[in-house]
Amino acid sequence: MATILILGAGVMGSAIAVPAADNGHHVRLAATPLDGTILAALTRSRDDHPRLGAPIPSSIEPVDAAALTADDAAAADLIVLGVSSPGIPWAVETLARLEAAVPVALVTKGLVANGEARPLTYADALPQMLSHKGITLPALVGIGGPCIARELAERRPTAVVYSGAAMEAAHTARALFQTPYYQIATSDDFVGIEACAAMKNFFTIGVSAMLGRHQRDGEPVKNPVAAAFQQAVDELEALSQWIGGRPSTAYGLAGVGDLHVTVGGGRNSRLGKMLGAGQTVAGAMNGPLDGETVEGVDVGRVLGPALRAAFAASELDAAGFPLATAIIAAAESGGALHYDVAADPIIDQRRRA
Amino acid sequence: MATILILGAGVMGSAIAVPAADNGHHVRLAATPLDGTILAALTRSRDDHPRLGAPIPSSIEPVDAAALTADDAAAADLIVLGVSSPGIPWAVETLARLEAAVPVALVTKGLVANGEARPLTYADALPQMLSHKGITLPALVGIGGPCIARELAERRPTAVVYSGAAMEAAHTARALFQTPYYQIATSDDFVGIEACAAMKNFFTIGVSAMLGRHQRDGEPVKNPVAAAFQQAVDELEALSQWIGGRPSTAYGLAGVGDLHVTVGGGRNSRLGKMLGAGQTVAGAMNGPLDGETVEGVDVGRVLGPALRAAFAASELDAAGFPLATAIIAAAESGGALHYDVAADPIIDQRRRA
Repeated sequence: MATILILGAGVMGSAIAVPAADNGHHVRLAATPLDGTILAALTRSRDDHPRLGAPIPSSIEPVDAAALTADDAAAADLIVLGVSSPGIPWAVETLARLEAAVPVALVTKGLVANGEARPLTYADALPQMLSHKGITLPALVGIGGPCIARELAERRPTAVVYSGAAMEAAHTARALFQTPYYQIATSDDFVGIEACAAMKNFFTIGVSAMLGRHQRDGEPVKNPVAAAFQQAVDELEALSQWIGGRPSTAYGLAGVGDLHVTVGGGRNSRLGKMLGAGQTVAGAMNGPLDGETVEGVDVGRVLGPALRAAFAASELDAAGFPLATAIIAAAESGGALHYDVAADPIIDQRRRA
Repeated sequence: MATILILGAGVMGSAIAVPAADNGHHVRLAATPLDGTILAALTRSRDDHPRLGAPIPSSIEPVDAAALTADDAAAADLIVLGVSSPGIPWAVETLARLEAAVPVALVTKGLVANGEARPLTYADALPQMLSHKGITLPALVGIGGPCIARELAERRPTAVVYSGAAMEAAHTARALFQTPYYQIATSDDFVGIEACAAMKNFFTIGVSAMLGRHQRDGEPVKNPVAAAFQQAVDELEALSQWIGGRPSTAYGLAGVGDLHVTVGGGRNSRLGKMLGAGQTVAGAMNGPLDGETVEGVDVGRVLGPALRAAFAASELDAAGFPLATAIIAAAESGGALHYDVAADPIIDQRRRA
């Protein structure tokens, strides 16, 4: 039996606790300062997670991250970062305070701005951030693939992919988490997995816009969504390669698989549908999505300056990225999304054909 | 203004008439012997297509294919085969009777058995069939990509891909059909486009099974569908390459794009959902789908012997095709579909990761 310490008791941190607990491990689910309500609810009953929508096993131990000590971190075989991307500074501080020196797995998804240079994934950025605090992790494991938290907690079957700079750590993490309903492939394309996992949120906004824009009797029609989905896969492949990943990763679980599950569910998709129906980013974020983290918007704001620089330097061909360009413009301006399948100029013999 | 003769007044033949008519061309929509009801309805009113679910422009001329002469064929700039795959023998006979010597475009999708050798796509098989009748077409154009017929007839935007052994013919066909709502890319991977277009029906059965198998309150859960979708894309890429296509084509409009639109709509998807809910192929085909053409089943029966021979010869690794193998077994036996995401053995460092 291993001890797994999960930092963040939100939906993903709580959901990934389930396969680990089912495998008989001691799982400590540590609440961040923002998780107070969740901690109180789970302390009363593991059946009452206020956001997950599903019970978690009673063997899972809810704890307050503020009460953790370096001994708690040292006693863990693996620490999981279960926060969303705005929680990364807190997670870095916490790992430093706990003098963490055990492998860390990462469900957090995002890109880190690097000026006009290509953005960094957490595969590169997180070790740098920790290094500034004097922390060197023995291993970092990234997690990608289609995995809606509630469905994982309900033990609905899915397949995901674990990666890391050192594959041994990915294999070790897989051994802790793999269950019949949570199948884990491994990949050594750590940067590619992280790039795809972050950008799938971004592209979901554009694909989901077609759900909001083209409807019949209140139901989405299918052709525009499928055409935009394929456009998103095409651009995702090119951008993840630009960031440093392998093209094949975009066609795998962390790319095609995760993009598929993200379109139609979650906050990025909700924003996309609103944009498709004619709302602006600012209108949605100050209205129905007020207070929510919509990670695809943040990714768009990180991508913008870097992508324009890459276009200007002819490192990438702007004509190949109509969907990314439109989402970035909306994210940066707070305005409307000016993309439609019909507005996408078709280039003869384009790669996607 | 060009003259376009469409053989087959079913849903796809009728739908593709719409962009051509909108471009001002003279479109003759020729009813097969099975299209009598459609011909009668369209002769009364172009608004009353009994199967399409949408009106077609009044400029479209419904005709009886039996009344066509060689002069009619010679007067056409392009002939479109709008039949489904069981209609191909009739279409070949008709092209021979009409002494067709004009370019032909093909919306029909299917694979042709070639014993235990790799199946043929229509890119190769149709010229052979016509050659046996003494007919040599000046050009053959294949059409792939996400395109639900009713939505095309309603002028919902989509993006498709035209291909051909000679690209000039694909460009000419594109010029006839391209509209703001019907964007046409071109590709010179004719075999790959045809292979993907055929096999997307086949794989849709397996992906859609997850819609039927994993539900909450009667609604499908998303993770299993997304994981199976990615598995399907992975196997589609490998099989289309085996048949002679380029890998990138499977990630394009004819692969990822068309698979996306086909899952969730149409007869192949309906069969898949029934299989996911526990029905057998025979039970579905003799019950709710009685009398329907489910092309993915036919594709499975063509793929079966050839794929087993390829596995036996170590031309392909059977472990990489759990989804195809399960669909073939169900198609051949008429039995249940024994596939689930959780039953898919994960192979370390598999390509899809």
